[in-house]
Amino acid sequence: MDKSPQKTAEKPARGRSLPDVAEMAAAIRKGNRRALARGITHVESSRADDQEFAQKLLAELLPETGNAVRIGLSGAPGVGKSTFTEALGGFLTGEGLKIAVLAVDPSSARTGGSILGDKTRMEELARNPDAFIRPSPSGGTLGGVARRTREAMLLVEAAGFDVVIVETVGVGQSETAVADMVDMFLLLLSPGGGDELQGIKRGIMELADLVVVNKADGDLLPAAKRAAIEYKTALHLMRPKTQHWTPEVQLVSAIENKGLPEVWETVRRYEEVMRETGTLTEMRAAQSRAWMWTELREGLMAHVRTHEGTKKRLASLEGEVARGEVTPTAAARELLALVLKDG
Amino acid sequence: MDKSPQKTAEKPARGRSLPDVAEMAAAIRKGNRRALARGITHVESSRADDQEFAQKLLAELLPETGNAVRIGLSGAPGVGKSTFTEALGGFLTGEGLKIAVLAVDPSSARTGGSILGDKTRMEELARNPDAFIRPSPSGGTLGGVARRTREAMLLVEAAGFDVVIVETVGVGQSETAVADMVDMFLLLLSPGGGDELQGIKRGIMELADLVVVNKADGDLLPAAKRAAIEYKTALHLMRPKTQHWTPEVQLVSAIENKGLPEVWETVRRYEEVMRETGTLTEMRAAQSRAWMWTELREGLMAHVRTHEGTKKRLASLEGEVARGEVTPTAAARELLALVLKDG
Repeated sequence: MDKSPQKTAEKPARGRSLPDVAEMAAAIRKGNRRALARGITHVESSRADDQEFAQKLLAELLPETGNAVRIGLSGAPGVGKSTFTEALGGFLTGEGLKIAVLAVDPSSARTGGSILGDKTRMEELARNPDAFIRPSPSGGTLGGVARRTREAMLLVEAAGFDVVIVETVGVGQSETAVADMVDMFLLLLSPGGGDELQGIKRGIMELADLVVVNKADGDLLPAAKRAAIEYKTALHLMRPKTQHWTPEVQLVSAIENKGLPEVWETVRRYEEVMRETGTLTEMRAAQSRAWMWTELREGLMAHVRTHEGTKKRLASLEGEVARGEVTPTAAARELLALVLKDG
Repeated sequence: MDKSPQKTAEKPARGRSLPDVAEMAAAIRKGNRRALARGITHVESSRADDQEFAQKLLAELLPETGNAVRIGLSGAPGVGKSTFTEALGGFLTGEGLKIAVLAVDPSSARTGGSILGDKTRMEELARNPDAFIRPSPSGGTLGGVARRTREAMLLVEAAGFDVVIVETVGVGQSETAVADMVDMFLLLLSPGGGDELQGIKRGIMELADLVVVNKADGDLLPAAKRAAIEYKTALHLMRPKTQHWTPEVQLVSAIENKGLPEVWETVRRYEEVMRETGTLTEMRAAQSRAWMWTELREGLMAHVRTHEGTKKRLASLEGEVARGEVTPTAAARELLALVLKDG
């Protein structure tokens, strides 16, 4: 692979030069970690030229994507997500698999912190040559963060990772965004049982394909067993996401490294069922379509808010609507006519 | 008000003639029930000419809207919503108030049934000259049904009704739509306690400003009292919608006509607090703005789906995205450029 392509003089001068798309794609295909990290940086950038570059890179690598097992992992702070991920990652790399950990944490933009920002929390995994850890992209809306994480996932797949774990703190709306980009949603709970269910966001239990009760060790073991039964009962009350899979509950001790092979066995079994029934293909296709619509919707809304032709009228119409001088429907119709090419 | 404006001969001929806007508006202002019912029929119609007429009618009447207490009422089937509404309606009209009951029930489009379709369920209220009952508009998406109910509410307010109750079956997503169009959300539950909470949709409890436990009579009275305590506990676990109001729980027997003055007293107290703190004005302004954005979003999405310039390309792009040949972002960008007037 030619690592020093000739940059033609005809190329329009830019404030800075972007790398060559084909070159970076080739390096990522080979599993070059630095190229992967740089590719993700382009994906995460909000600069127009970076975005354009990222889209070219993704177009180039798209045929190489889709081969990883995509797992979403959510759980309230303190439940031990990092410890669990580190333990599972250690087990998987021991099995000869390459694992990538990405994060969706829109709150990090405001608080300045990130669930994976503190790398020391996954010290061992971070040093593991078969693991790749990327903290949550900072800044922007949940939609923006989710898009960047989805696209980072594609790059990670092109780089040959076998398992992608997308982590999120289960307190906001990000877990729905994560469930919409993965094959399987894993909810990590601690032995609090019903008390803990009160604390987590309603609705998150319904997303789970697998509930893992962590801290099933020492004094907490009996409580963990009781909690597992409670969670099973709660899951029974819910309509399953697919007819082909009944959500399961498993006990794990991330600290004592127990229960991880069983969790992985369940993930494999789930993927097999989803693949054999065609559900996986269907689900991923539906996710991609939905993602396209979300991008389109957000793009159109951004246009209305920022474009010269509409933003002034929008500002006055919003006021008129809020004061009850114009009906929302009439205002929306006027804006619609301003936005559309040929109504 | 001129009740017989001259219709000019230059007016383009139509397939059918629409009534005069000013005339219908004047009749609605006077509280003419037939005019009100016909106005709502225009609001509910999906014909372009009816829609245009409805928007003109609403524009004309908008200054007369906003004076009613807007109450959302939700609860699972069997909890006694109709009996409760009839009892509350009877009490309110007895107090000299005019009450309107509207319904949001998108499922009626599919099942053919409607929670208010069977008028015999509110036989007395339906005959009451100070009450106006309108079943759910049939057909269309939740968004469409919600828009039509919001606009029907405006017409009902212009007709001088003091209280508007917007009913919905608390099983789908319609209760959020209803909560977004009313001042106060009232959740009707039966004495099932925790068991019943399992059955209703998660999240609906969080919408409630007032929980009413119905059937607090006869053998069920002790269970109703216990349930009220359980619901209070559940409400305590939730973040209140506004700092100015802590959701309350009250016992009612709709069949024995007990507890209705107390419910009304709570509604009045709520409205007073919301008004005095400025929260009501803010909330209604925010609801109207949000409604405008929803209409705009849906209008733009409908354009993309149906417009000649985009729908063909959309069909092929959706396939390419689903098969993983194009990234959702790239597809969205292409569609965006097709839709926008001057990118």
